[in-house]
Order: sequence, then C-alpha cells, then structure tokens
Amino acid sequence: MYQGGGSNSQGDGAVRVIDMRSDTITKPTPAMRQAMANADVGDDVLGEDPTVNALQEKAAKLLGMEAALFVPSGTMGNFCSIMAHCWERGSEMLLGDCAHIFIYEQGGSAQLGGIHPRTVRNKPDGTFDLEEVESKVRTSDPHLPITRLICVENTQNICGGRVLPLSFLKELRDLADKHKLAVHMDGARLMNAAAALNVPPSEILQYCDSVSMCLSKGLGAPVGSVIGGKKDFIARCVRLRKVLGGGMRQSGVLAAAGLLALTDGAARLHQDHDNARIIAEGIKRLDPSVLQIDLEAVQSNIIVFNLVSHAVTPNQFCEMLNTYDPKDDLDLNIRVSMSPTGFKRGIRCVTHLHITAEDAQLVLKKFRIVIDRVAGMLGESVDK
Amino acid sequence: MYQGGGSNSQGDGAVRVIDMRSDTITKPTPAMRQAMANADVGDDVLGEDPTVNALQEKAAKLLGMEAALFVPSGTMGNFCSIMAHCWERGSEMLLGDCAHIFIYEQGGSAQLGGIHPRTVRNKPDGTFDLEEVESKVRTSDPHLPITRLICVENTQNICGGRVLPLSFLKELRDLADKHKLAVHMDGARLMNAAAALNVPPSEILQYCDSVSMCLSKGLGAPVGSVIGGKKDFIARCVRLRKVLGGGMRQSGVLAAAGLLALTDGAARLHQDHDNARIIAEGIKRLDPSVLQIDLEAVQSNIIVFNLVSHAVTPNQFCEMLNTYDPKDDLDLNIRVSMSPTGFKRGIRCVTHLHITAEDAQLVLKKFRIVIDRVAGMLGESVDK
Amino acid sequence: MYQGGGSNSQGDGAVRVIDMRSDTITKPTPAMRQAMANADVGDDVLGEDPTVNALQEKAAKLLGMEAALFVPSGTMGNFCSIMAHCWERGSEMLLGDCAHIFIYEQGGSAQLGGIHPRTVRNKPDGTFDLEEVESKVRTSDPHLPITRLICVENTQNICGGRVLPLSFLKELRDLADKHKLAVHMDGARLMNAAAALNVPPSEILQYCDSVSMCLSKGLGAPVGSVIGGKKDFIARCVRLRKVLGGGMRQSGVLAAAGLLALTDGAARLHQDHDNARIIAEGIKRLDPSVLQIDLEAVQSNIIVFNLVSHAVTPNQFCEMLNTYDPKDDLDLNIRVSMSPTGFKRGIRCVTHLHITAEDAQLVLKKFRIVIDRVAGMLGESVDK
Amino acid sequence: MYQGGGSNSQGDGAVRVIDMRSDTITKPTPAMRQAMANADVGDDVLGEDPTVNALQEKAAKLLGMEAALFVPSGTMGNFCSIMAHCWERGSEMLLGDCAHIFIYEQGGSAQLGGIHPRTVRNKPDGTFDLEEVESKVRTSDPHLPITRLICVENTQNICGGRVLPLSFLKELRDLADKHKLAVHMDGARLMNAAAALNVPPSEILQYCDSVSMCLSKGLGAPVGSVIGGKKDFIARCVRLRKVLGGGMRQSGVLAAAGLLALTDGAARLHQDHDNARIIAEGIKRLDPSVLQIDLEAVQSNIIVFNLVSHAVTPNQFCEMLNTYDPKDDLDLNIRVSMSPTGFKRGIRCVTHLHITAEDAQLVLKKFRIVIDRVAGMLGESVDK
Repeated sequence: MYQGGGSNSQGDGAVRVIDMRSDTITKPTPAMRQAMANADVGDDVLGEDPTVNALQEKAAKLLGMEAALFVPSGTMGNFCSIMAHCWERGSEMLLGDCAHIFIYEQGGSAQLGGIHPRTVRNKPDGTFDLEEVESKVRTSDPHLPITRLICVENTQNICGGRVLPLSFLKELRDLADKHKLAVHMDGARLMNAAAALNVPPSEILQYCDSVSMCLSKGLGAPVGSVIGGKKDFIARCVRLRKVLGGGMRQSGVLAAAGLLALTDGAARLHQDHDNARIIAEGIKRLDPSVLQIDLEAVQSNIIVFNLVSHAVTPNQFCEMLNTYDPKDDLDLNIRVSMSPTGFKRGIRCVTHLHITAEDAQLVLKKFRIVIDRVAGMLGESVDK
Repeated sequence: MYQGGGSNSQGDGAVRVIDMRSDTITKPTPAMRQAMANADVGDDVLGEDPTVNALQEKAAKLLGMEAALFVPSGTMGNFCSIMAHCWERGSEMLLGDCAHIFIYEQGGSAQLGGIHPRTVRNKPDGTFDLEEVESKVRTSDPHLPITRLICVENTQNICGGRVLPLSFLKELRDLADKHKLAVHMDGARLMNAAAALNVPPSEILQYCDSVSMCLSKGLGAPVGSVIGGKKDFIARCVRLRKVLGGGMRQSGVLAAAGLLALTDGAARLHQDHDNARIIAEGIKRLDPSVLQIDLEAVQSNIIVFNLVSHAVTPNQFCEMLNTYDPKDDLDLNIRVSMSPTGFKRGIRCVTHLHITAEDAQLVLKKFRIVIDRVAGMLGESVDK
Repeated sequence: MYQGGGSNSQGDGAVRVIDMRSDTITKPTPAMRQAMANADVGDDVLGEDPTVNALQEKAAKLLGMEAALFVPSGTMGNFCSIMAHCWERGSEMLLGDCAHIFIYEQGGSAQLGGIHPRTVRNKPDGTFDLEEVESKVRTSDPHLPITRLICVENTQNICGGRVLPLSFLKELRDLADKHKLAVHMDGARLMNAAAALNVPPSEILQYCDSVSMCLSKGLGAPVGSVIGGKKDFIARCVRLRKVLGGGMRQSGVLAAAGLLALTDGAARLHQDHDNARIIAEGIKRLDPSVLQIDLEAVQSNIIVFNLVSHAVTPNQFCEMLNTYDPKDDLDLNIRVSMSPTGFKRGIRCVTHLHITAEDAQLVLKKFRIVIDRVAGMLGESVDK
Repeated sequence: MYQGGGSNSQGDGAVRVIDMRSDTITKPTPAMRQAMANADVGDDVLGEDPTVNALQEKAAKLLGMEAALFVPSGTMGNFCSIMAHCWERGSEMLLGDCAHIFIYEQGGSAQLGGIHPRTVRNKPDGTFDLEEVESKVRTSDPHLPITRLICVENTQNICGGRVLPLSFLKELRDLADKHKLAVHMDGARLMNAAAALNVPPSEILQYCDSVSMCLSKGLGAPVGSVIGGKKDFIARCVRLRKVLGGGMRQSGVLAAAGLLALTDGAARLHQDHDNARIIAEGIKRLDPSVLQIDLEAVQSNIIVFNLVSHAVTPNQFCEMLNTYDPKDDLDLNIRVSMSPTGFKRGIRCVTHLHITAEDAQLVLKKFRIVIDRVAGMLGESVDK
C-alpha cells in the first residue's frame, strides 16, 4: 500500500509537503519544547517525577477518573488496560472487528496477554449491534472462556473518525452492568470525540471503567498516552507497565509536553474538525464520477473518501497527489501526502495542528488538478 | 440451556432413553472392550506401546499423511496442531466464526498458545467466502500479527454437520498456497464427511497440511483423537502433547479401541446418516407451523431443526420430548434427549451407534405426540 | 544417555529382560484389564461417567481432600494445579531445583502458564532450607512477581525417591501460612511415601493445599493421575483440564483400573520397597572400588548408586547389565535394564510390580558378574 | 526496606541531599535539555525520526553491532532481546540467579514471554561456573525445554557493579558456540564496564550476539535504552517493541539526549569510578567493627559494604545517614541517601553525575559521624 513519504523532499526546496497521512506525525510546538527543556524531573519508576505526577493528576481530573497513569504509547495504554481487566486465566473480550486493538496492535492481547478476542461487527458509524454483543456473552461452562470486557473505540479510527453517540454508550453500559462486564474505551482520539460532541471527556467516560488516551496524535505531544481508571485498576496497570518495559526514568520531560497537550492541544482540536469539514465538503463538490464522500461520516479530523473511477488505483491517485509537476500549476508548489485505507477503494486523510485553513484550500486545489487529469483519462480502466 | 440428562432414568426401568444429545456419548462396543482387555501395551511416553504405534501407522495411512499421533481429545488434537503451525511469536490464524476451535475450546489458542484468532463468517453450509479470507491475510508490518494458518472444520458442527465440498477445499488450498499459509482441518467428524462424500478421507485431506480426527464421537472409541501431518509437524506435536500433559503411559488400552474405531466404527457411519435422513424427512412431514427443517442441510449424522411455534420454548420442547407420560401412549415408553443449539430457536439431535433404524421410527412417533400437543396449545405464545 | 531398551528382545526368546528403568513401564494387571472391559461408563466431559466419579470420590477420601479430579497424566495434574494456584497475572512459584516440574515438564509452567519459577536448592534428602525459601518470598513491588506457591515433590524422584519428613512439611506449612502461600505436592509417588512412612496419605497431605498423584507408576494403572484439593480449586482445574485438552469422554475405562490402583496397587508397594532394599544392600556388599551406594538414601522403590570405577562409563555399565552372554553364566539368561541418572556417575533402577523378590536376587547375580568383569579391567580408565 | 526518599527536603532549604540510591536518578544536563528542545523529529513508528535514526546508527557503531534500536527502558531492551532469541515455542534461557532479568523484571520472560528461566549460581564476581552452565544445557527430548540463550549482566548490579573479565566472556562464547546458544548481555551499565576495563564496548561485545544498554543510569539521559544486534535480530525486536507498546512517535526528543549520553555521558564515567573508589577506600579506613568492605569488589560506580555492628539495623543505619542533626556538625548540612541491598546486612550506594569529588569527601565525613555514634552504642544489639 502507498505509504506517502511525507518527509522526503523532492530536491526542490520550494515544494512543500502537506502531510495528511495521520495526526501521529505532529511535532511538538515551541511551547512544548520549552516546557520539556525546563521540566522539573525525578525518577518516575520510584514515583518521584513531579511533572509526571502533575500530568497524572490533571489527566485523572479531566477524565473524571480516580487515577491516571502515563505510558509511552497508546498501544501500551490499551494493552495494560485490557490485561488489568482480564486479570484471571481464561478471559475473553468483546470488541469491534474494526477496533485498532484488534487490527493494529499485533494481536498483543492474545499473543502476550492470553486474552481471547471475540469480535462484533462494527457498524459504519463505529457502534455495534447490542443484541449481537449480548448474544456473544458467554455462559459459565468449561468449554468456554469467561467474558470479562467490552472494548469500544472513540473516535473510531477505521470507520473514519466516527464519534460514538452518548446514547449508545449508555445502553452499552447497561448491558455491561447486566452481565458484570467492564467497559474499556480506546480513546486514542477521545478529545476529538469530546470536541465533536462539545462535552467534557468525563461526560463520555461516565459509561466506561477505563480509558487510554493519546497525548500525541491530535493533541500534539511527541510521546505518550494516559490510562484512566479506578485506583486499584491503575495499581494493576503500574505493574503491567513495568513488566512490559514502559517504566521510564525522568519521563517528566515527556509529561511536560503532555500537560500542554491536555490544555493547548485540546483547545484547538475544533480547528482540525473545521478544516476536515472544509476539505470534505470541497471533495463533495468535485466530480462524483471520480471521488465520492459521505459527509455524514466526517465527524472529527479524519476524512475518508472513495475513489470510484477505475482509471487509476487508490495508490496511483495518492501518488498523483503527492507529486509536484510545474506544468500543472506553477504556483501550486505543494505535494499532498495521504494513503489508501486498504479497505476497498477508500483513501484517508487527517487534519492536525500542522494543517491550517489555508492548507485546506491548497489541498482542494491540488485535488481539482488531479481529478481533472483522472477524469480525462481514457474510459478504459487501468486498474485491475 | 436444557442439557438433556440422558443417563438419568425416571425411576421406571421400563422407560428407555433414546439419547441423541451427541455422538460423544457413545459407549465402547463389546469388541472394543475385549480389545482393550487384551491389548499389548508398553510405555508410550518412551514410544514403546505397540498398539499405539499400530494405531498411529494405520491412521497415517488412512489419512494419507506422513505420520500420526494419538492424543486424549479432539481439543488437544486441534490445540497441538495450531500451535505446531503457529510455532513462532506473533502468529495469527483465520477460522470460521462458528468453528469449534473458536467457540468451544475455551479460547486455548489465545489463552495458552498466544495465537491471535481472526474470524471469517461461516456461511450456512460451513464454508466461507474466500474473498473475505484473502482480505484478512495480513501484510508484513510491525503493527500486525503474521497470518500463518487457516482452519476449517469438516463436518462443520455448528452449521449442522455440513460436509465441506471438495471444490471449496481445492480453492482454499490454492489461496493458502498463494499466501504461504498452512491449512488445518478440525476433522472431529472427518469420517462422517468421507462417508457422506463416499470418498476415502485422504481424498479430502489432500488439500490440508494437518488434521485432528476424533476416534470417540461417531467412531465409538471411548477416548482419543489422532493428529495427522508431515513428520516434522508431528514431531512438534509430540513436544506439545507432552507439555500439555497428554503424554500417557500404557495408552495402548485406548488405542486398541481406536483401531476398531477406524475400521468397524467407520464402516457403519452410513447407517447413522441414513437414520438422520429418516428422522429429518419425518420432521419435514410434521406440522410446519411447529417445526421446520432444511433437508438440504442434513448431510451427515447431525439434524438441526427450528421450533417455529412460539407456544413453547426450545427448552420446553426438549423437555417434552424427554418426558414419558403413559397418558400419551402407553406403548411408546421412551424418552428422547436432545438440546437447543443456543442459536435462535434451533434444536439439535445426533444419530450414532446406539440409535437404530427402529429407534429413528420411535423418535418420530414421539415427535408426533409432542407436536400434536404443542399445536393444540392456545395460540397465544408462552415464549418470551 | 543410555535408554535401556527394555522391550526389545535379543532374538533369543529364552532371555528375559528385567526392566528396572522406571515404574512407569508397569502394565495393567489381569484384574485391571477385566475391570476396564466391564467398566460402567458415560461421557465424563458432561460429568456422567459413573466410574470416573467413583474414582474421584474414592481418591478425595483417601487424600483427605474436598474433591478430586482425574487427568490423563501427572504432568497435567501438576500443570493444572500450579495454574489454579497461580490464577492471576505476575505469579511466581518456589520449587526445588531438582523438582520434576522444573526439570522434566518442558517448562510448561512458564511456556504456557506464564508462571515465573524460582528455584530453591534441593538438599540430598529432597527437602530444602526453609531460610532460603523465606529469603526468596517476594515483597510487593512492581519490579517483582508475586510469590503465590511452593511446590514440593514426595517422594523426590531425582534425589533417589527420598521421602519428605512430616516434620519438614509441617514447618513448610507454617512458613507458607506466614506468607499466605499455597503448597502443592507433586505426589507422583505419594503412595510410596505413605507406605514408607506407614501413614495414610491424608496424614502427609494435611500440610498441603493440593496434590497430584499418579495412578500409573508404582500403582500400576495404565493411564492417569488424580488431583486433590478444595472444591473451588478443583473447579478451576476442571476448566484448565478442558483447555489443555485433558477432558476425555468414556474415561471410566481408565478409571476402572485407577480404582484398583488405589487399593490393590497401593497395598503392595511395601514389596517394591523391600525389593529395593534387597538390591541396595546387595550392591553395598559388592566391590566398593566399582560401585558405591548410600543405603540411607534408599527409602522407597528407587535405588541410585554411583559407578566409582572409571574403567567403564555409566552408559557402558548399563549396557553390560543389559547384555546376555552365555559365557558369563549359561543359567542366568536375563538382561537387566536401567539407566544413568545424568548427574555425575549415578545409575538408577526402580522396583515395581513386575519385579519379584526372586528377580531382585537375579539382578544381584547379574551385578556380580558385571562387576567382576569391570574390576578385572586394566587399571587405566577408558572413561573420559 | 528503607527506600531513601532522596527528593524530600526536610523543610530546611539549607540541607542538601546527596542522593546515592542509584544512578537511575540522574537528571538531564543543560546540554541534554537544550538538545531535546532543538531536536529534529519525525514519526519514529514510521521510521522517520532523524534523531532516533542518528542515535541508532551511532549506537550500532559504538557497540560493534550491525544495527541498534531505541527502546523506552532497559527492561524492554532485555525483554525484546530474549524474546527475539527465544523466538520459538518451548525455549529456555540460562542466566545468573542474581541477574536483574531474573530478579527485578517481574518475571516478564516467563509471565508474558513464555520462556523458561533456569538459573546458574552467580559467583561473587558476577561470573558463573561454566561447568555448571554446561551441565544445564538441555538435550533434545520432549520432556525438556530447548536451551536457546545464555544471559550475562555487565556490570553485574547485585554483585556490586562487578565487571565481567573478558577472558570469562571468551570462554562463555566458546561454550555457547559449542551448543549453538545465543549470548545476550544485559549491559544496563555496559559503558561502566568498558570504562573500568578501558576498552571500547565493542571489544566486550565481540563475545555477545546482542546487548541492551541503558542511556539513562550513569550516562545521564532521562529515558531510554538501546538494543544492539544483527539486522534480522533487530527486525524481530522492532516487532516486539511494537507489541509491547514501546513504539513511540517523536521520540527524537529523547534520542537527542541519548546522543549526548553516548558521548559526554560515557566520557565522564571514570570520574564516577574514581569517586566510588574514594568512598570505598574511605569506608575501609573506618571502624571495622561497624562497617566492612571488600575493596576488590568495587570496580565501577557501585559500592556495597556490610554493616557488621548489630547495634543498628541496615535500615536504621541508612536513616541515620539520611538525617541532618545540627548537633552533629553544624557545617556538614547534608543528608546522604542510600539503601540496604536486602541481602544479609549489605548497604549499597552509587556514584553518578550529580556526585562530585567534593561530595565524596562530604559523604565520608557523614559516615564518620554516624559510625562514631553507632560504635558508641551499648554493646547489646537492638537488631533482631
């Protein structure tokens, strides 16, 4: 699959790359860099890093959880959380078949955690059918694992950054309570969900036992995530973080940026959503025989659209966006980097702190040039 | 769920239970008991049990495999096999969402084996969509587990004992070869599939790298399964059987019955299929406002039908079949034991060596009595 | 290492092999075979096998435990037990560095069970230093696993079948209670320990939370072991047996032999101990420049002695015992099979139900012939 | 155990804490903070962080390895390495019974990695008896795990920072080659070993297949370690780092400090060793009825000494060092923080970049005061 290559310049310094592959590529702001340089630090393995402690307290408050824990990645945040919930032998978790945990975390839950994953079909909006969930809760029998946990993802990445409705979460909570199951939220982009719903994250998390939220991605910190949950749950996560090798020393240097991510980073997410909207609506106005997009589905900073023309492949289309040709438009000296979703003919781009409203307009201009060229191609498909 | 209770008499010695819950309940024949009593044995952990060795040789030949290994259960047969194929860290297997391995083996593949299971939707006939399979084969990327194995089940139990078409297996093999994947067959009831297709099992297994086949179930041995595969694969299984605790000492006493299972047991399976057919067709002729059955789906010794009347629940229906009431029919002094499938309103019964052609007729008589009573119930449903 | 080859005749039917490699090679008695052939059986996975149920009740009573469970091997008995005790993540067990669990069960506790094993040095008598044990109990800290379990082995196989003193077990129990640890006994040869101490096994097990005892080995059953423990512990073991693939169907055929093992098999163990004594004392009287033996250490049915002469290797010595040469003694047409221990120059032989008092005398005669030959060898060593 | 509490001031700002608990507490230097603030970064999960890449190249060169990988902790460095070597089922590793991996990494190798650890007794100098190692290499047999790996630790922490002799490593390498085993070095403090031996680290590592080296600890970086090894080994580690959750985004902010750790940090280690020497020799000159020290054993930046007086416990002794009492010496307004080793009556202190030569003298002064007080205590012991 086409991977972009956002950081490779084409030898022509004047050509700028607008890198929309993911919000994971965001670089720390000058304020974050300053905060990192000045951070008051200690040995966090001994619990003595004041900046990490401050971050954890602030995060716990924001998330409405008893306690929080800083970890080096979202994958570790999710992994610690599900292992802490599935603490005993023979546990099973239910999660969406599009869940990041299931698709993109190397199957660690099973591979190292010994947890049996059972998937529920994700609907296009990122939710699932609660009847299907309930039908998959196991009864007590030695033939069967023990259902312990339901995982949700918010915003749901593969579904295109969809925001889970609060009403869905409430019903899921009721179902979980009925069967004594824990609910974990993979909140890698939780703050995007909160921004989209215009509620504090704690209002979303009232329906969850735990959350893992990334400070990198849209919030802009260079490294790290926080887990939130009850105190005894976090105590288990401390043990799990240690055995996984996530116990870091003077990690206050990272937490210092994380603190700004929680404030400044979160405060500006609505801009990313606005820019995503601009781009999505712009795409909608383009030639529908080449690209199609469901505007309803663009709810946060992720835009997924479909290449309906078979004149080029999704990979080729992305390559065209990521190429600068002076013949096209001498003044539009940009390349735009994005990638196919891998699901059918979808292409995904993501807005983030390095994409301005002006960039959004430039991106749309670039789209128009590429689409014109695709539309002009011979009717016969080159795409197998 | 209603579990039957086949072995509990009702205090009235004259009432016979026709136990159709499963073919797992079959008891060894007199010939098997005699063979067990006379078996030449040795310490099989040291490879010195001549009867186990004979069974393994005979099984390997029958299955068309280089080597075979005796194990105490089908669960262990499957577990050793998938661990032997998924020998390295980070492995994923693809299997049907109705697979016995996925549903009824306590998630051991993940729990203890560290293998990430990814399911493909089983079609009603037990096969799956090969495009879906192919779309789920992973590319090489540290975010992703490594797809190593596809598991199929033949006959497919939850789908009602469906026999996988040879053409499907051939296509699956081609797909597996294309992506360098192994194919394991959960052949708990492989000999039923062979009998239904009227081919030797080796003709089915030409498309598979390994198989686990039960000697208990329809073949009638009291205990045990055999794994078949290449020599180095079986060498891995020997190690895995040992670590799981399946290395047994003078297990020739069991293998002696297993040898008869391979010959006498296999030879009579077509009778079970005939009896299943008699019962299925008999059900088809009964009141379709109470029971419905897809005759197409009855291909081996498993019969699944649906209770469409809502006058009683599947549990209640099974209880009625399993109760003897002299008022019903003084001469039909039998009870019939079967159980709900747990999927919607399905009920499952299984023919086996203790069910004769006459029993099949008695069962149908009993059905008629119960159905008459159900049909006569007030129209209003008691079933929620 | 020399493995004996007890079952291979030398082509001369008149030469009998006295196979003393292990008591695992014992074949079922005629009474056992009869019982197996006549056993009343059912589907034990459904809990419906009356003979298995009878065995489990009888074993529980004998062991002084709330409940018992039949499993196909001692390895599975130990593995289920330690996983049931180490039910939560991050568990560590303490056990002897000569423990069968540590040395001969393929490291399953770690490999599949995720339990960190920490060894304590076994003293020559099979016990360990309780101060060392206590020094290795972990404090609570995320750097450290959580000590949950101490395992002992009785009789201690590698130490030469040593019987653990009751006083040691009592002190160990006190230590375990102090630190809230469970105590599991690998009682593969528990009945030998009971016979040697002349106490019922329950008197030994009063200091243990659980036990795994083999019905094969000295007790003579062809296959199987029983786990004993509290009811909730056994309920966990039922789950673990299932996931390991140890759930068997009509296993009453095995349990029938197991019931006789508990009575007849146990009743005759003192004969094996007497015969071991005869052989050990006979060896003591032989040329001490060739063989040496610590009579104190021979407490049950295992005899370990040391080859002090360097004229031959332990392997060669065993080969000489296992060869019949008419020149030696035309009337002593036997071979004797035993094997090096692998620890220094030790050789081990084991008495069991197929070794009579007369055999013990024949074995000693054979020893004399071989030792004479060794003693007569050139002084210069052929052993590297 | 007494944990120090280095960061808690006593409310009297004038009292300075000399924190010698560990070199893990070192805070980044101003140069490191500057480098972090200015680091050129990218998304390292995509391999696009130039500073991480630069660090990995520099480290590989320094270590004499084909490739290197940045990870968030030494625990993860070791864990990835041993899992990469023990890539197949049923693996066992041999390591010292004082190894950090065995004692202080929560048993992760077994808990999550499924690797069976078998310990060899560490000699006081950190090496082990190679005959013992060889006797513990397994033969091929289904009863046994497969020996794959030997781990050494250099400098050996629990043994007091002992430097492994190159001659020992050479012999170990020969042994490993003979049995086709890999050798991994836990080089958390590898650069201390190199400084002590006055050789480049690559000279040490010529005998090893892989190494994990901490950039924090003595080298002063806030967070991180590097793994070194062959390219395919590092490729496995990339996968393992990902599944453990150690894949970080703009981790160039940490790598920037790591680069300085490799140069400036490493260049000054000999000062720590000099200061350790000063302190050790100073202790040697103190009252031997209170403290004793083996000067031979002080080879790097760790000093372990024994409290032989029973007038106080090791905890109490450490508390006395960590208390400022103006009555003692108005001018010596310092506290010194160190901790008991937990092994008998040992106490450990560590020199590092925040301990100057003057601090070493102050520490000795403090020692003298405390020792005088201890020596003056009533002869009768207060220590139980």
